[in-house]
Amino acid sequence: MKHDFENFRHLRQQGNEKVLETDSLTIKRIFSLDKQAYKEHTLPKGTKELLGLVASLVLRCNDCIDYHLEQAVEQGFSKAQIDEAMGIALLVGGTIVVPHLRHAAHSLEYLFSNNS
Amino acid sequence: MKHDFENFRHLRQQGNEKVLETDSLTIKRIFSLDKQAYKEHTLPKGTKELLGLVASLVLRCNDCIDYHLEQAVEQGFSKAQIDEAMGIALLVGGTIVVPHLRHAAHSLEYLFSNNS
Amino acid sequence: MKHDFENFRHLRQQGNEKVLETDSLTIKRIFSLDKQAYKEHTLPKGTKELLGLVASLVLRCNDCIDYHLEQAVEQGFSKAQIDEAMGIALLVGGTIVVPHLRHAAHSLEYLFSNNS
Amino acid sequence: MKHDFENFRHLRQQGNEKVLETDSLTIKRIFSLDKQAYKEHTLPKGTKELLGLVASLVLRCNDCIDYHLEQAVEQGFSKAQIDEAMGIALLVGGTIVVPHLRHAAHSLEYLFSNNS
Amino acid sequence: MKHDFENFRHLRQQGNEKVLETDSLTIKRIFSLDKQAYKEHTLPKGTKELLGLVASLVLRCNDCIDYHLEQAVEQGFSKAQIDEAMGIALLVGGTIVVPHLRHAAHSLEYLFSNNS
Amino acid sequence: MKHDFENFRHLRQQGNEKVLETDSLTIKRIFSLDKQAYKEHTLPKGTKELLGLVASLVLRCNDCIDYHLEQAVEQGFSKAQIDEAMGIALLVGGTIVVPHLRHAAHSLEYLFSNNS
Repeated sequence: MKHDFENFRHLRQQGNEKVLETDSLTIKRIFSLDKQAYKEHTLPKGTKELLGLVASLVLRCNDCIDYHLEQAVEQGFSKAQIDEAMGIALLVGGTIVVPHLRHAAHSLEYLFSNNS
Repeated sequence: MKHDFENFRHLRQQGNEKVLETDSLTIKRIFSLDKQAYKEHTLPKGTKELLGLVASLVLRCNDCIDYHLEQAVEQGFSKAQIDEAMGIALLVGGTIVVPHLRHAAHSLEYLFSNNS
Repeated sequence: MKHDFENFRHLRQQGNEKVLETDSLTIKRIFSLDKQAYKEHTLPKGTKELLGLVASLVLRCNDCIDYHLEQAVEQGFSKAQIDEAMGIALLVGGTIVVPHLRHAAHSLEYLFSNNS
Repeated sequence: MKHDFENFRHLRQQGNEKVLETDSLTIKRIFSLDKQAYKEHTLPKGTKELLGLVASLVLRCNDCIDYHLEQAVEQGFSKAQIDEAMGIALLVGGTIVVPHLRHAAHSLEYLFSNNS
Repeated sequence: MKHDFENFRHLRQQGNEKVLETDSLTIKRIFSLDKQAYKEHTLPKGTKELLGLVASLVLRCNDCIDYHLEQAVEQGFSKAQIDEAMGIALLVGGTIVVPHLRHAAHSLEYLFSNNS
Repeated sequence: MKHDFENFRHLRQQGNEKVLETDSLTIKRIFSLDKQAYKEHTLPKGTKELLGLVASLVLRCNDCIDYHLEQAVEQGFSKAQIDEAMGIALLVGGTIVVPHLRHAAHSLEYLFSNNS
């Protein structure tokens, strides 16, 4: 049986393709900008992924959290480092963020067991 | 098999009935106001549905998005016009809105295949 | 078949345990603070649970709503009183809160049928 | 020199009058509902004012906070009780609420020195 | 003495220039996209300005509200039409939006007295 | 004449002292946790300040932005690096964040002219 994270990956990919079947230049350009914005420039890519993760946590978007968790793990951050970043999000965003920490813990279990 | 949109319609109807089994006048009055507020007055109903759609997107509520998408399609807006409205929501609300665009694209696929 | 509320309870418990398998002191301390904060002090526990419920509704978090609904029912509030508190949340937070009222109505049905 | 709180009262009153010079039934009805909703019914008025206060804090609206603080003081809550309610808002809403606690502390200083 | 709206215009202009003294391509591109996105395409510019206004109201940003109010007045919408759009924002966003309606009423007074 | 940033520093300090004249343990503990949470642990203090900055931007709190900008400058980040972090916040949070970028640009002007 597929882990929820694999379903997320599939649905995200499929959904993005459907969104991009659009004539809206605004939508297309923001998607294109989103691909560029996390690349290393004056800040390392890793730091930028943690920024994306914390933004996603305080704004409480599970899909966005999952995406940045996967990138953060790929960038080599440890579970302890990711948890430390998530602690900042919990402090700033409050206990309303807790259900998203539960979601993240479930995703991290998958990501660390499959990327080791 | 039912499309997710049909399930949404059913659960929304059933849920609203359950909410209205209440003695709270505040809840009842806001529900009643909600029925009146989108009617044509000095602005066309169609414009008001797009306003409801964009508000629902930037506040990131899938059920609310689905409801206003259905109304917008009924009011005769094309896929391109709805996407253009959604582009404004994406720009103002940021990429945190993207998962809701994926949800909307899935719903629009259903709405345009069943209303043509 | 289990009611959604029982699944919520199980997943919440399991998820919290997974979150607390962390070295982050910030996360641990906020979880510990969360356990203390709703106890009776100068305000009754019941009032504080209603405060948590309204905060959860206007911030639109179903898991948080479910948790405080359960506590509010345990504290002896009637359906009418809980609805009255939820009416304040709907008024302050707007119709974007409506889908969460539908969720709450479904949970309350379970909570009152199992606590009578 | 007038305290900020007195200016707030004046501007709020003046602003509400200007808003109500409108033909929008939706706006008029929500203003009218807002006047009714905090009255004692199955919950005491005091509890409802605390609910409004906590909702205002987690949604981070200083004007709304000031209004409910004034009502809470009129309902006889002590500084300790109001602080306890605000503590719940801080916990649920996170440290992003802190600047609004600073605002509230400034307002409470005025309200308790002028209502004793 | 200058009306608050004139100060807003001046500070907005000055602030945008300062923001654009940046090397960040992401910031520059989003500013550039923002200039394009409200132009007439499949929807009239006027409708898009109302969409921007309602998004700004429910997200509660006075500067953004002022900008779109000015554009909406320039596009020829009447006070009644703008109020009707703002009514949708109040309904969807809740009474937490009220202080922003007060701000908007103050701005509209200026905009209609200077554009007639 | 004092720069707005100096006023912010003074009012923040004064306001925090007033908030801490409280009996609420929840408030006191969160303030104490806030002092600890940004210290270097498995992530450098600098990275954590950028996380706090981005969280403050997407949640749109000027006081919080100012605080983390000051810390980020003290940690040695360049204007270009801080702008790059703010670009992520703008992308994720949308153009509703723009007024806060204007505020930040004004603060950064002060911080870089006084820390060189």
